[in-house]
Amino acid sequence: MADAPETAGYLIAPNPKAPRLTRAVMGTDQFGQPTEISVVEERPLTIYLNSREIVTAMTIGDHPVYLALGFLLNQGMLQPSDKVTGVDYDEELEVVVVRTEAQTNHEEKLKKKTRTSGCAVGTVFGDMMEGLDGVTLSKTAVRTSDLYTLAHKINRTPSLYLEAGAIHGTVLCQGAQPLVYMEDVGRHNAVDKIAGWMFQEGVSAEDKVLYTTGRLTSEMVIKCALMGIPVLASRSGFTAWGVEIAQQVGLTLIGRMRGQRFVCLSGEERLVRDADPHSIPQEPRKQGRKGGETA
Amino acid sequence: MADAPETAGYLIAPNPKAPRLTRAVMGTDQFGQPTEISVVEERPLTIYLNSREIVTAMTIGDHPVYLALGFLLNQGMLQPSDKVTGVDYDEELEVVVVRTEAQTNHEEKLKKKTRTSGCAVGTVFGDMMEGLDGVTLSKTAVRTSDLYTLAHKINRTPSLYLEAGAIHGTVLCQGAQPLVYMEDVGRHNAVDKIAGWMFQEGVSAEDKVLYTTGRLTSEMVIKCALMGIPVLASRSGFTAWGVEIAQQVGLTLIGRMRGQRFVCLSGEERLVRDADPHSIPQEPRKQGRKGGETA
Repeated sequence: MADAPETAGYLIAPNPKAPRLTRAVMGTDQFGQPTEISVVEERPLTIYLNSREIVTAMTIGDHPVYLALGFLLNQGMLQPSDKVTGVDYDEELEVVVVRTEAQTNHEEKLKKKTRTSGCAVGTVFGDMMEGLDGVTLSKTAVRTSDLYTLAHKINRTPSLYLEAGAIHGTVLCQGAQPLVYMEDVGRHNAVDKIAGWMFQEGVSAEDKVLYTTGRLTSEMVIKCALMGIPVLASRSGFTAWGVEIAQQVGLTLIGRMRGQRFVCLSGEERLVRDADPHSIPQEPRKQGRKGGETA
Repeated sequence: MADAPETAGYLIAPNPKAPRLTRAVMGTDQFGQPTEISVVEERPLTIYLNSREIVTAMTIGDHPVYLALGFLLNQGMLQPSDKVTGVDYDEELEVVVVRTEAQTNHEEKLKKKTRTSGCAVGTVFGDMMEGLDGVTLSKTAVRTSDLYTLAHKINRTPSLYLEAGAIHGTVLCQGAQPLVYMEDVGRHNAVDKIAGWMFQEGVSAEDKVLYTTGRLTSEMVIKCALMGIPVLASRSGFTAWGVEIAQQVGLTLIGRMRGQRFVCLSGEERLVRDADPHSIPQEPRKQGRKGGETA
């Protein structure tokens, strides 16, 4: 089958054949027969900001530098204006060290908050909400014909998901073109890798669409807004708070996008409904998004 | 329709009609028509251990006391032997305070580790791995006929998942009987609520099966092993490290369980294959597990 057109136009597409990302695992099926299954890897990656250990993330292990940068950015520990002087990745130690020109006050802030709260998770989440006050998203229109094309292309792009399942994908798109398709065991990692790539490459956010296979929870919506991307679409569902935050920040939120169907929960004013949904085929039940199906 | 038989034998079944757990959200569908959708809530819950703030978890908000106890247990901050003198839940503040007889050395340990690592996530994960050394799981047999019955019953149990989607379920089972069915926006919360319930009720783990709708990642396998439950089954996929840990601790790990299909990745010796898979109907494609489908 012609694979090439499916990854045409991508700047980064998944590399499902990369040996480090999957492993053959032996099991027995329902008949007691041995069966070999291609399974995604999951590795710890410890992220440092200068001399400070920040977090150990569980990841498939590709794009560790983008993951580290994006995590720090999306947690507000690194600002887009910060000067990164170097990023060192040690594959053996499974460590990434991000170095900034000057110790940022975010490190001080984290230190202080950590003392009072005991765990950065809650603290950082509070910080992310605070960061939303400064967010203004561009009014860029988005055509439903482009959204349908994106979903169609992404669903047919060779990926670890299609290869091995048990993984989430997030894709940075522009118009009808998927640009950067990241996957990871944690859907937040996939988003963080995109944020890291955008930071490293100096890519603007205001004309982009973020597409994800995962659910649209509050944290997903917050990350998208903090990244400055005005449109977030998913084939999965959403939570009430996710919808509420999208409405507050004026983000266009589209859920349950499958075949001709979708629901717009927020930011309807950006949608240009130029496609006739009847002209879009229903998603075939066996079209490939496996979600746990196995041969 | 007869709902009663579907929840027969449950000690705790989901309560999809509870008003606090879902909210009607307005959106527009692919034709631009207004549509009202029932969506799960997501609320912050801040957990304290004595005077120490530990974490803010995002949760649907049911069973906050079980969630707090289970989180602390599964993170190794509370030991099964610790004497809990009280658990206070303040619905308005969205706070749970777990009080122990004496300040445990886990609080000291956490304080120390927090200073060196900056975030409890990485630290705590390390602790969880350490905790596995002491785990010995019972040799209890598990019949495949019981597993098929469990999957059949659970898939037909009225739940928030069937009602609103975008949620994960985890079910504590014994033999062919589902006992406690917890749901949450985060699958780890659902497991933690079960751990909290078992602790509070003094329920033993060695003859139980844990069934989950979510993926079998390393953290999921670790939690199950730490809880002392020898069998973990899921309708979803698994990661290579999840399988590896299950093999190390001798846990029976079953993935991709749908209709007559399943794969056993570890702990085959507990399986009594007393069911003929051919006698089990294939899972109908439209049978109700929606995964984002909407009317």
